[in-house]
Amino acid sequence: MTPASQTTRPDGRTADQLRPVTITRNWLDHAEGSVLVEFGRTRVLCAASVTEGVPRWRKGSGLGWVTAEYAMLPRATHTRGERESVKGRIGGRTHEISRLIGRSLRAAVDLGALGENSIAIDCDVLQADGGTRTAAITGAYVALADAVSWLGERGKLAKATPLVQSVAAVSVGVIDGQPRLDLAYEEDVRAGTDMNVVCTGDGGFVEVQGTAEGAVFDRATLDALLDLAVAGCAELTAVQQRALRSDAGPA
Amino acid sequence: MTPASQTTRPDGRTADQLRPVTITRNWLDHAEGSVLVEFGRTRVLCAASVTEGVPRWRKGSGLGWVTAEYAMLPRATHTRGERESVKGRIGGRTHEISRLIGRSLRAAVDLGALGENSIAIDCDVLQADGGTRTAAITGAYVALADAVSWLGERGKLAKATPLVQSVAAVSVGVIDGQPRLDLAYEEDVRAGTDMNVVCTGDGGFVEVQGTAEGAVFDRATLDALLDLAVAGCAELTAVQQRALRSDAGPA
Amino acid sequence: MTPASQTTRPDGRTADQLRPVTITRNWLDHAEGSVLVEFGRTRVLCAASVTEGVPRWRKGSGLGWVTAEYAMLPRATHTRGERESVKGRIGGRTHEISRLIGRSLRAAVDLGALGENSIAIDCDVLQADGGTRTAAITGAYVALADAVSWLGERGKLAKATPLVQSVAAVSVGVIDGQPRLDLAYEEDVRAGTDMNVVCTGDGGFVEVQGTAEGAVFDRATLDALLDLAVAGCAELTAVQQRALRSDAGPA
Amino acid sequence: MTPASQTTRPDGRTADQLRPVTITRNWLDHAEGSVLVEFGRTRVLCAASVTEGVPRWRKGSGLGWVTAEYAMLPRATHTRGERESVKGRIGGRTHEISRLIGRSLRAAVDLGALGENSIAIDCDVLQADGGTRTAAITGAYVALADAVSWLGERGKLAKATPLVQSVAAVSVGVIDGQPRLDLAYEEDVRAGTDMNVVCTGDGGFVEVQGTAEGAVFDRATLDALLDLAVAGCAELTAVQQRALRSDAGPA
Amino acid sequence: MTPASQTTRPDGRTADQLRPVTITRNWLDHAEGSVLVEFGRTRVLCAASVTEGVPRWRKGSGLGWVTAEYAMLPRATHTRGERESVKGRIGGRTHEISRLIGRSLRAAVDLGALGENSIAIDCDVLQADGGTRTAAITGAYVALADAVSWLGERGKLAKATPLVQSVAAVSVGVIDGQPRLDLAYEEDVRAGTDMNVVCTGDGGFVEVQGTAEGAVFDRATLDALLDLAVAGCAELTAVQQRALRSDAGPA
Amino acid sequence: MTPASQTTRPDGRTADQLRPVTITRNWLDHAEGSVLVEFGRTRVLCAASVTEGVPRWRKGSGLGWVTAEYAMLPRATHTRGERESVKGRIGGRTHEISRLIGRSLRAAVDLGALGENSIAIDCDVLQADGGTRTAAITGAYVALADAVSWLGERGKLAKATPLVQSVAAVSVGVIDGQPRLDLAYEEDVRAGTDMNVVCTGDGGFVEVQGTAEGAVFDRATLDALLDLAVAGCAELTAVQQRALRSDAGPA
Repeated sequence: MTPASQTTRPDGRTADQLRPVTITRNWLDHAEGSVLVEFGRTRVLCAASVTEGVPRWRKGSGLGWVTAEYAMLPRATHTRGERESVKGRIGGRTHEISRLIGRSLRAAVDLGALGENSIAIDCDVLQADGGTRTAAITGAYVALADAVSWLGERGKLAKATPLVQSVAAVSVGVIDGQPRLDLAYEEDVRAGTDMNVVCTGDGGFVEVQGTAEGAVFDRATLDALLDLAVAGCAELTAVQQRALRSDAGPA
Repeated sequence: MTPASQTTRPDGRTADQLRPVTITRNWLDHAEGSVLVEFGRTRVLCAASVTEGVPRWRKGSGLGWVTAEYAMLPRATHTRGERESVKGRIGGRTHEISRLIGRSLRAAVDLGALGENSIAIDCDVLQADGGTRTAAITGAYVALADAVSWLGERGKLAKATPLVQSVAAVSVGVIDGQPRLDLAYEEDVRAGTDMNVVCTGDGGFVEVQGTAEGAVFDRATLDALLDLAVAGCAELTAVQQRALRSDAGPA
Repeated sequence: MTPASQTTRPDGRTADQLRPVTITRNWLDHAEGSVLVEFGRTRVLCAASVTEGVPRWRKGSGLGWVTAEYAMLPRATHTRGERESVKGRIGGRTHEISRLIGRSLRAAVDLGALGENSIAIDCDVLQADGGTRTAAITGAYVALADAVSWLGERGKLAKATPLVQSVAAVSVGVIDGQPRLDLAYEEDVRAGTDMNVVCTGDGGFVEVQGTAEGAVFDRATLDALLDLAVAGCAELTAVQQRALRSDAGPA
Repeated sequence: MTPASQTTRPDGRTADQLRPVTITRNWLDHAEGSVLVEFGRTRVLCAASVTEGVPRWRKGSGLGWVTAEYAMLPRATHTRGERESVKGRIGGRTHEISRLIGRSLRAAVDLGALGENSIAIDCDVLQADGGTRTAAITGAYVALADAVSWLGERGKLAKATPLVQSVAAVSVGVIDGQPRLDLAYEEDVRAGTDMNVVCTGDGGFVEVQGTAEGAVFDRATLDALLDLAVAGCAELTAVQQRALRSDAGPA
Repeated sequence: MTPASQTTRPDGRTADQLRPVTITRNWLDHAEGSVLVEFGRTRVLCAASVTEGVPRWRKGSGLGWVTAEYAMLPRATHTRGERESVKGRIGGRTHEISRLIGRSLRAAVDLGALGENSIAIDCDVLQADGGTRTAAITGAYVALADAVSWLGERGKLAKATPLVQSVAAVSVGVIDGQPRLDLAYEEDVRAGTDMNVVCTGDGGFVEVQGTAEGAVFDRATLDALLDLAVAGCAELTAVQQRALRSDAGPA
Repeated sequence: MTPASQTTRPDGRTADQLRPVTITRNWLDHAEGSVLVEFGRTRVLCAASVTEGVPRWRKGSGLGWVTAEYAMLPRATHTRGERESVKGRIGGRTHEISRLIGRSLRAAVDLGALGENSIAIDCDVLQADGGTRTAAITGAYVALADAVSWLGERGKLAKATPLVQSVAAVSVGVIDGQPRLDLAYEEDVRAGTDMNVVCTGDGGFVEVQGTAEGAVFDRATLDALLDLAVAGCAELTAVQQRALRSDAGPA
């Protein structure tokens, strides 16, 4: 393997460098929490919607519920994709990513403290340039935090602090034998191995999903990718914290 | 009827005044034409996608094709709506508006001059505050114009000028007996009569769709509403022209 | 524009003349109101079905509900169309017309006087020769009136007279520069401008839906078309009243 | 068992008597063959649509194809049924009957003589009072015969006489221990055993479908039901022949 | 017709001979009743699932409910078939057979004695070689019997003996003019006439479904086929009884 | 963490012990490769279907294609699940697992050597007791190998050895703080962390999918789980090899 810091990437980054990341809170007027998150040219709108009560199967449990739905606008990509509403069915990839985001966010929340409230997080990809699922998780956490604050300000939480930890996510992959952080689309299609990692703010793993797209990977590569990912998530955690500290709440 | 210029509206506008309108071109990197159009808090992303060739039933005709699809993000509205992809079917309102946008845009185009090229315009409502279909048409025309230029620059048009006229659209309605221009959501739900009007740049009618939501309307009211709408469309035409003259093309 | 009364049409009518219109009440044995309406060769079966109670979202409001569904038999048209049940989805045109009929009929009814009863009107086109949606509205009003009488005879209305006004509908269009009333299919496909107008029995507008299919229209054309439509609806209102006065009620 | 000729039925028929049967040819203007068939109050519109060519899997075989689709209008029945197009799926009963009609009609046709032409027969129940599937088959055969004549008049048949035999169908059942012919709805729901029989004009069996709805049946009952059905089909065959001899062809 | 006992069939059987039939009880660990039934190479897994309570429309009736669902694994057949879950809709044949199995099993049960319990029987064809629906019914009866015993052992039946009679089913058909019992796939595709017969243990008819696939049949053929089927069902009843007597219940 | 070899599990296994694994080849008569794989009480039927040619988007590439579909019979589980064909849509979990199996199997194949042939592997869970996706991958590889041999014997491969490596899969998880191999259902629902690992025969990673179901995991836990999984996959590889060496090919 080539050392991660020595190769130049198509956009001039070093192998262990994130793309410019911005998180714009309160991008929408109606949602209880909303974020436009950008990882380079990847742009995802995350909207958190609060409803009182929980799905029927959960009623009376004292526990809240957090779900997520991921989707792409038809022209988020280089060529236009047909709408899933027009096809009449949701594709496997969409299902898979929605489930991943939901699980990841639930790891951030003490559902008992949330009380019997539901938060649905919609992650709609406005523009895709690789890493849409990791950008979505990273942005959705901030939207979720705002929605939880909204509930807290209205005295609707069962306990004071339902957010037990933050979550952030990043992709890593091996391109031309070199492990790299936060792949853009151009790199993603060339990656032999591709991994998405979701970490908590203090560096624990929530999800590790590695796939050999063409080239089987060994333990050393896996370790190198995890190191890159943990460091990347730590940086993303800092961006999330700055965004949440800023005075960007709803008027 | 109360004179249109004398009543104050919830947002302080006069009865014949549009909300602030902005048209941001090239909001997306991949689409051949793209516009973020805002009518006050209503925000619609319009993306024009060019493909060579036309649907099978049109092949060999020498004519191009222009279609549109309209959709709303789930949390564009005050309370979250279920996704049509999750429901597995497209609702009547969505179908109706998609068809209206498509017909309106085709009125702007000489399909013979376009040659056997297809342009699909996706209008996705990111935030809704009334007038989403009229904002969509107004913005989509600009995205269409950029897509036509894109074809022209690549020498792919059958004739030089497929755009025969511009189209813009606005809503009008009667609130408390007073005809008003460009209804925001708060006014829209209170309107006894509601009309959407699509005009060409020189004031011809493309579509007139008036509905008595609770109160039947007479010929005088219809005339007053049409007057307001024609004036409103003229203003929107001017905004479109300014946007298209600005130096906002893709790098 | 050519004067409306001077041109001969394919079927020999003058420009301001309706096709022969017949309304046959009680065409079905089970429905609370049913009508076979014919506008020339266009033949629509309208069946009104009463159910006690209203949809859940309306319960306890004291208000009734009226809806409509429009559909075409596969061989109503010149060439066979695939069934929407076989396709597994309802098309945009069907949705659009169903919504139009429902809105038009609700304009005829005081939903408070109806009480918490629901009336569903099915309009199934047995044969199509242009003007199916306007024939459907015109016939459906009569089926609705019979269903309301059925409720009245059983003492199930909240107030005596839920029908506040009658509604009828007709199409108008411009063919070869001439405004014409009640287009048959052969004329409809050649129309540059096409308008469907729904009026109340006393000449108020319920819906005005004008579309430039190829040729933008100006204010004078719009006025001429509205004049034709209002006169046509007045004639249809007279046909409805004759049908309702006749002794055609269920045995 | 009670002798079939001695009990009076709800509508005064003897046990071996058909309801009044009428077959009205050319009920539609566009279809190549069309019939309104009535078995008492059961009313089914049968439309035969000819298209040149056959489905892809049959191309080049020299054989034609005949299919059928059965459906009910929502208010054909005593209480309104939801449309299958609205549900988004076709029910088992509809599927089952469509397949039965198609198989039965194909028994009437020499598909080689038909040549590579397709005939689709739509059987839409306008009003249901028991026996809709058997009325549909009986009427559809006449519509099919007219469609075959239409092909013959245009010189499009591979051989002169694709119709090798006629088919007709009738229901029989056991009510209160008595075998009866052609059950109306009121009898159908009370039948312990129910059978639909499709015969050719010369008395051969095409389909025999007997079901014990509550009471198992023995061989003697089966024989009695078959006797009734064969006699009933012979009468229906005579009605079909009279209809086809009448001067009711398209102008 | 050739005498049923004199012709040799592809697999060496006489015309009135069943294929080897095996019924393996308790093939699954979770289901309240489960059977792997084999008619030669046809292999169907029948699983009976008990739930307390009945569908809403049946609540408070004191009656139980029995349903069935039939399906084929994609590679049960010679060439792979697309999954109905992937197509998004259930085919007509599947619907038809599911309904047949459900009706047949309900003939075996006193639904009042069952009490307000539901039993759903899933019949999944693991391998198909003709006669899948008749094997399914024959096996499903045994799974049903085990599920009823399961309810009885837990004291959940309204009366002691809900099973009023056993049911078994077999196919018969005419190949080369000869009536034959229990057709394998190779014979089934060549059969001019095909019949499925469901009998009770004491020889009564529950369902008789005969179809002329190409050759109309006369009364003598029908009689010969019924004789074969009744004898075949009697043999199958004996196999069912042996299986149920064996000590094969869950540990 | 507790040492993996010291705790007793519900079924008496040590923490690093697989359940009894059996692979029965040629379980079906029609499929080109078929396997019944059992991991304890988990039973999956894997059928490989060969078709000549590839999907349209791949034609002319010289490359073959391998896909997989996973599904569960309704009563594979403790309580009956509704069929996805009846629901009319495939769930997210099913989609996710089908995609995982397909990707894993493609890692085993040189698609160029396969030539333009397609192999579809259906993995139907007959009984579920945890680890259905890992059992499916492990069994599917063997069915794939038999299907490749089938192609080879018929001279239809582009090159001699399309199988470049074997793949096998196993689940691991942390229960009560202890890493364990091959979780049965009872353990699976209690696992704080759950991981599915797909390895090649020589120990490389194809997929690593770890999820914190309730408890975030650290690097040491991840390492311990990977060690267990790699050892478990090695054992499964040996079972696969034994099965493939046995004389179990089709007659």
